[in-house]
Amino acid sequence: MNTLVFNSKDIEIGDEMSKFWKDYPDIERELEYVKETMQKVSKSSEQYLNNSFDYLYSTGGKMLRPAFLIIGSLFGTKNVENAENIRQLAAAIEMLHSATLVHDDIIDESYLRRGKESIHSKYSKEYAVYMGDYLFSQCFLMLSEFDISHTLLKELAKGISMICKGEMIQNQYRYNLDISVRKYLKIISGKTAALFAASLSAGANETDLDSKQIKKIAKAGHHIGMAFQLTDDLLDYKSDEKTLGKEVQSDILRGYYTLPIILSLNSEYSSDIKKILLKDTLKKEDISLLIELTQKSGAIDKTEEMAERYTKKAIEDIQGLPDSKGKNILLEIIPKLLKRNY
Amino acid sequence: MNTLVFNSKDIEIGDEMSKFWKDYPDIERELEYVKETMQKVSKSSEQYLNNSFDYLYSTGGKMLRPAFLIIGSLFGTKNVENAENIRQLAAAIEMLHSATLVHDDIIDESYLRRGKESIHSKYSKEYAVYMGDYLFSQCFLMLSEFDISHTLLKELAKGISMICKGEMIQNQYRYNLDISVRKYLKIISGKTAALFAASLSAGANETDLDSKQIKKIAKAGHHIGMAFQLTDDLLDYKSDEKTLGKEVQSDILRGYYTLPIILSLNSEYSSDIKKILLKDTLKKEDISLLIELTQKSGAIDKTEEMAERYTKKAIEDIQGLPDSKGKNILLEIIPKLLKRNY
Repeated sequence: MNTLVFNSKDIEIGDEMSKFWKDYPDIERELEYVKETMQKVSKSSEQYLNNSFDYLYSTGGKMLRPAFLIIGSLFGTKNVENAENIRQLAAAIEMLHSATLVHDDIIDESYLRRGKESIHSKYSKEYAVYMGDYLFSQCFLMLSEFDISHTLLKELAKGISMICKGEMIQNQYRYNLDISVRKYLKIISGKTAALFAASLSAGANETDLDSKQIKKIAKAGHHIGMAFQLTDDLLDYKSDEKTLGKEVQSDILRGYYTLPIILSLNSEYSSDIKKILLKDTLKKEDISLLIELTQKSGAIDKTEEMAERYTKKAIEDIQGLPDSKGKNILLEIIPKLLKRNY
Repeated sequence: MNTLVFNSKDIEIGDEMSKFWKDYPDIERELEYVKETMQKVSKSSEQYLNNSFDYLYSTGGKMLRPAFLIIGSLFGTKNVENAENIRQLAAAIEMLHSATLVHDDIIDESYLRRGKESIHSKYSKEYAVYMGDYLFSQCFLMLSEFDISHTLLKELAKGISMICKGEMIQNQYRYNLDISVRKYLKIISGKTAALFAASLSAGANETDLDSKQIKKIAKAGHHIGMAFQLTDDLLDYKSDEKTLGKEVQSDILRGYYTLPIILSLNSEYSSDIKKILLKDTLKKEDISLLIELTQKSGAIDKTEEMAERYTKKAIEDIQGLPDSKGKNILLEIIPKLLKRNY
């Protein structure tokens, strides 16, 4: 196994949520309500538990998934009647996402999340396992506690199940040099795109859109999720020479071979790349060479093209829907979200 | 932290389920269907995943919780119409229970479960974390996929949430010498009794019993669960001198101070017991002395009395319900279940 080092990507101090949504005060305000809901439902008579949840929520990111749920609810021609329903749904989705992050950090031995200590590092691995389980169960309790249709509940449960399966499969393919492009796309479809699709469509489900339109929104969510993940994958390969020394290629070191690596393993540079990846410890020079080879092989360009293709598909899906506030916002933030790194 | 050793309690080879239910062929047959359902819903196109689920299910125990659900469904005056519903519910409950065991084994560093390698030991810790998550999510998916009332769904979700919270609190109180009897009973109420109550009442919910009667069944389940946990706690203290050397007091070594220890910490032997528990490593002699002191203090007798009190309460609850097949079976197996160790 390769050595693990802190990932400089993680060190982003400040309130990501406010920064990202500053041009959309309505969304930002709703996300604040969502945060409050999460805090409220996690409250118990155990002070220790309360503190740990407050801490967890203070390390929150952009809150993309609940934001997508809210944006989905703005796709109708009328205002959604029950704003409280949307907040509850959004909080449930974010708690689920938090559960997966708390467990991911244990597995990846990440000691920092967004510049703050991760849960297993601040408390303990044991506590982090149970905290993730509790967040899962709270998500489900919230979903069951209020009035959503059986169909929606089933869709959300399917989404949750797909995420967990995606994580299992991804974990099984760690350090595997033979993973195919097809398999990789299937993994990220479950691990990332499923929740984007579920969030957008769960929100849209509360509007007056018909089922065909809701399916289209789900498809858009899937495409955004795919593009989002590929864009994230590219982070490891887009650092220029000046920052290269500092940048740690965390995915590679952790045995997660993402699309740039997979594509370059199918290129003429395959054997050189394999030689590096099979080393016990990767030095800075190895990483530099790896990035160079990936670029030379055209894999970076191809990954970018693929991300762009998914983005275009998402935009097409959305443009096919009736005009609405949600449509405007989504079309505006897509470039902001998916072009941020290149 | 105390040293960890294999727990001889774990080494029970053979098919526990068939052995325990051999006098109840109807229950045994239904449990076989439940097993099939679990296998069916876990199937995917990933052979590796399939093998790991087959392995997990091959290490199954008595399947008490799904059996309780089935027994609950036999409390009505008529046969339950939809046997398939009961099997699905029972499978969902057992998958949830499996999820908690898979995660517990990681935390307790248990390398064996019922004489076979535990999941994290056979596969990896990473895989075990995700497998538990996936089992949780499959449980939710199954609950959401078929036709149960919103009230029942909410009750089950609450039960699941209570289990996870119980585990978090229990973990927080590890190695804590100041845990009160009241706090301990609250922990096991969440960790163990909640699922017994949920299983029995979810089954009864499918019958023609009224809500008051279903509440009574839930109460019986709670009392059985409490007695079951206290009986289990006593295992560590009931070994005679001959087996003492071999028997490992796993709960104590892992920092889980159960009722016998908690009660004796409130006795005249408190300071002697504290002295032992505060040692870095516990030797055989320490354990022998600890058990001796616990017995002398009367804590073992008191724990037994308490288990008996809960058992009596459960029997009273059940006797207050109309005659039925379920009632007969439950009254027959209670002594078998709760007297097995003393």
